[in-house]
Amino acid sequence: MAERIIEITELILRDAHQSLLATRMALEDMVPVCEDLDKAGYWSIECWGGATFDSCIRFLNEDPWERLRTFRKLMPNSRLQMLLRGQNLLGYRHYEDSVVERFVEKSAENGIDVFRVFDALNDVRNLRTAIKAVRKTGKHAQGTICYTISPVHDIASFAEMAERLLDMGCDSICIKDMAGLLKPAPAYELVKAIKESCGRDTLVHVHTHATTGVTLVSLMKAIEAGADMVDSAISSLSLGPGHNPTEAVMEMLEGTGCKTRVDMECVLRVKAHFEKIRPRYAEFMTNFSGVESQIFQSQIPGGMISNMESQLKQQGAEGKVREVLAEVPRVRQDAGFPPLVTPSSQIVGTQAVFNVLMGRYKVMTGEFADLMLGYYGATIGLKNPEVMQKAIEHARKHPISERPADLLHPEWEQLRAAALALPGCNGSDEDVLTFAMFPQVAPKFFVSRSQGPKNPGKEPSPVKADAAAAKPAASKGQLSEPVTYTVTYAGKSHQVTVAPAD
Amino acid sequence: MAERIIEITELILRDAHQSLLATRMALEDMVPVCEDLDKAGYWSIECWGGATFDSCIRFLNEDPWERLRTFRKLMPNSRLQMLLRGQNLLGYRHYEDSVVERFVEKSAENGIDVFRVFDALNDVRNLRTAIKAVRKTGKHAQGTICYTISPVHDIASFAEMAERLLDMGCDSICIKDMAGLLKPAPAYELVKAIKESCGRDTLVHVHTHATTGVTLVSLMKAIEAGADMVDSAISSLSLGPGHNPTEAVMEMLEGTGCKTRVDMECVLRVKAHFEKIRPRYAEFMTNFSGVESQIFQSQIPGGMISNMESQLKQQGAEGKVREVLAEVPRVRQDAGFPPLVTPSSQIVGTQAVFNVLMGRYKVMTGEFADLMLGYYGATIGLKNPEVMQKAIEHARKHPISERPADLLHPEWEQLRAAALALPGCNGSDEDVLTFAMFPQVAPKFFVSRSQGPKNPGKEPSPVKADAAAAKPAASKGQLSEPVTYTVTYAGKSHQVTVAPAD
Repeated sequence: MAERIIEITELILRDAHQSLLATRMALEDMVPVCEDLDKAGYWSIECWGGATFDSCIRFLNEDPWERLRTFRKLMPNSRLQMLLRGQNLLGYRHYEDSVVERFVEKSAENGIDVFRVFDALNDVRNLRTAIKAVRKTGKHAQGTICYTISPVHDIASFAEMAERLLDMGCDSICIKDMAGLLKPAPAYELVKAIKESCGRDTLVHVHTHATTGVTLVSLMKAIEAGADMVDSAISSLSLGPGHNPTEAVMEMLEGTGCKTRVDMECVLRVKAHFEKIRPRYAEFMTNFSGVESQIFQSQIPGGMISNMESQLKQQGAEGKVREVLAEVPRVRQDAGFPPLVTPSSQIVGTQAVFNVLMGRYKVMTGEFADLMLGYYGATIGLKNPEVMQKAIEHARKHPISERPADLLHPEWEQLRAAALALPGCNGSDEDVLTFAMFPQVAPKFFVSRSQGPKNPGKEPSPVKADAAAAKPAASKGQLSEPVTYTVTYAGKSHQVTVAPAD
Repeated sequence: MAERIIEITELILRDAHQSLLATRMALEDMVPVCEDLDKAGYWSIECWGGATFDSCIRFLNEDPWERLRTFRKLMPNSRLQMLLRGQNLLGYRHYEDSVVERFVEKSAENGIDVFRVFDALNDVRNLRTAIKAVRKTGKHAQGTICYTISPVHDIASFAEMAERLLDMGCDSICIKDMAGLLKPAPAYELVKAIKESCGRDTLVHVHTHATTGVTLVSLMKAIEAGADMVDSAISSLSLGPGHNPTEAVMEMLEGTGCKTRVDMECVLRVKAHFEKIRPRYAEFMTNFSGVESQIFQSQIPGGMISNMESQLKQQGAEGKVREVLAEVPRVRQDAGFPPLVTPSSQIVGTQAVFNVLMGRYKVMTGEFADLMLGYYGATIGLKNPEVMQKAIEHARKHPISERPADLLHPEWEQLRAAALALPGCNGSDEDVLTFAMFPQVAPKFFVSRSQGPKNPGKEPSPVKADAAAAKPAASKGQLSEPVTYTVTYAGKSHQVTVAPAD
């Protein structure tokens, strides 16, 4: 009997280091594996979008468009994939349609083949322009369902969203489980429901994080239900808040009647490379590498917890983490149960911190008010009318029910003029888009760009690297305790004790 | 519809720290969680046997029998479980039947309820005496199949072994996957085959390690095939060469029609305790915490690889690891495909090292010759007759086909006399058994016992703990690369470069 092929998307060049190394991986550390990735037999290589664009210009002095062109050149046989936040593109506000169209066009032109498009609120109106634009380029448009758990989300509502995405012309459907909440039985039910309501030929792609420890099982059940593609990351950059290991996905299928097209020899070479490279980024490494089942109770993604902890610390209120964790689901309910993913996770989390520190909704962030008032889009749950009233008062705005981008006026020419006026801007549409998405960071980047990429990875000496892993703040070249050496200087040997300088 | 109950055995007090912390956990660090474990709702708590007995007297100055009595007192409502190496008990040779009987009797008397009995070669003759003895005490006898992969092992042969174990009177069957080799599809097939050949009421218990990253999926498939009990370890001492997290097993069942009886609140308190305790054992922590799919190719358990690496290093032959990894399967084939588990893993691994360093079978360890000649029992695969001939020459012994313990004469009185002559021996049968199993270590332990337990855990300073975790072999106070300091000596400052001494 012919085995069924399960296609794999490799995440190691984007989401893996975004989840594990704070998106700090420099291009030069990825270049050596591109050949192996290109010939390994993946369905696609996710390598752009998400937080990588921001990280490139903010931390790495790297032109993200140049990174994409490099991948295109080095992986000529592969589908290159990006993650796109719908109407937000890769920035943090809504853009007017012509900017969205231009961004998609330029991304395709520079090398992207597969656009995975999502909206934090699952508001399909925020996906429509991007998906249309992708279709215009002839590239693959993947419509995304952000998986979440709430009293208003169920299998049927997700399956219905899949139908709407297909109506828009999506080539495939992605189930995006950003916090590792997708358990095996719902994974099976969800894939089955989508296949039933949308047709068995509908391509279903499953993206999970490993955070809660159960999602490799969920991938297995999704595959049993008919999932066509699944995401994974090669083991040396996997697990924890990252993803299930590619090798594990490949091996678990043996004897099941399914197999991947991926070549293990290629995978093992890539694995060895990142095993060697990873310690250089110890400073940025997540300090969470195990399994966190409490996420099922709080539903709060790992990255959000560390974010809230640092906010609380800045306020001298480290002791209030538990209270905040309990507050998050309440704030989420008040806001109509949005999925928690960038940017809704940050907005809800920050408001929960404010509620605990200063009293419930005594202070409201502008972003949370906007979320309540519909300026990010619609939620499927009802909003708390009292909190809505407070948002109106805080923000002095009215609630809206239309698509947020419909309020915007054409802005391309204006953005273009502002970008071109910046020193170092090369006048390309790509530079205008960089400026449009990161108006604070782009001006500095344009000026420093000519200095070339700055790799923040550091060659670790074993002790230093591990000290850095445990204490990111510890500076290099220091000893933590006195050490005595026999030192030969000018022909004489001396016992010398070296102690830390401070 | 009533949900099917899946019973859980908690490994955190035995195999979890044996696999992750070199069995170094001191009793005092376990006492605080016993109450929570006792009321959590486990089928059993594995807490004794395996390497813990050896570790107690060798490293912790702890009386293992006293440890067991403490568990019995602190967990009055739980089944206490131990791992027993059949005719080897917890030692490294075969014991005459009366010693085996006495050991089982005393273990039951001191608190053990469930005896998981295995033989490294799956030779059921080596299990018979222990299982009979367990039955005599009225306790639960669990017959164990060591899962392995070879041309001579298949589902049918394992199912047949299960039948033989039941014929001996076992109360349940354990599938023991010590290297994480049990993939989902074979897990399903194996459980199904045992249920079919032995009857649906046969209790099947699945033990896996997490090493290869796929075995949580295997537990799911085993459960789908009808497995009654599965093993896990609470997350803060899980994964890597350890086990799948208890929380993950609990959560993955939601919506499947199965559930556990385990209480998450109790589990989370135990988790928090070991999260706090674990760093104190950093020195002993395995430096492998990810996923190792290459085990599927080499079939060599993680612990065995680090063992072989240190053997090679002692011989100045670190570069030969790959050659040795390739040699292991050949040696295993010559020996008739024994499963690789204590002690066969060490015996085969050491012989492979010798073969690579000195030429194939130029030197043969006494243990390997014994394995070839049947002195550990029978294998189901045929042995290489040429190597067999060399074993006869090396060891100057004849091959045997009878049960190894049949060659032994009654030895209890002799062991008893020798033990009682030792200073510090308290004259109990328990002390005689301690001496019988560890004749080299027990004399020293009897003398030092009165000083009380020594906890090897250390309050970590962050830098030291992490350096130790990453590089267990590196001695303290050494640099791995040259460092330049400004050193003031006799009133003068000098730039001094300090380089490693070798």
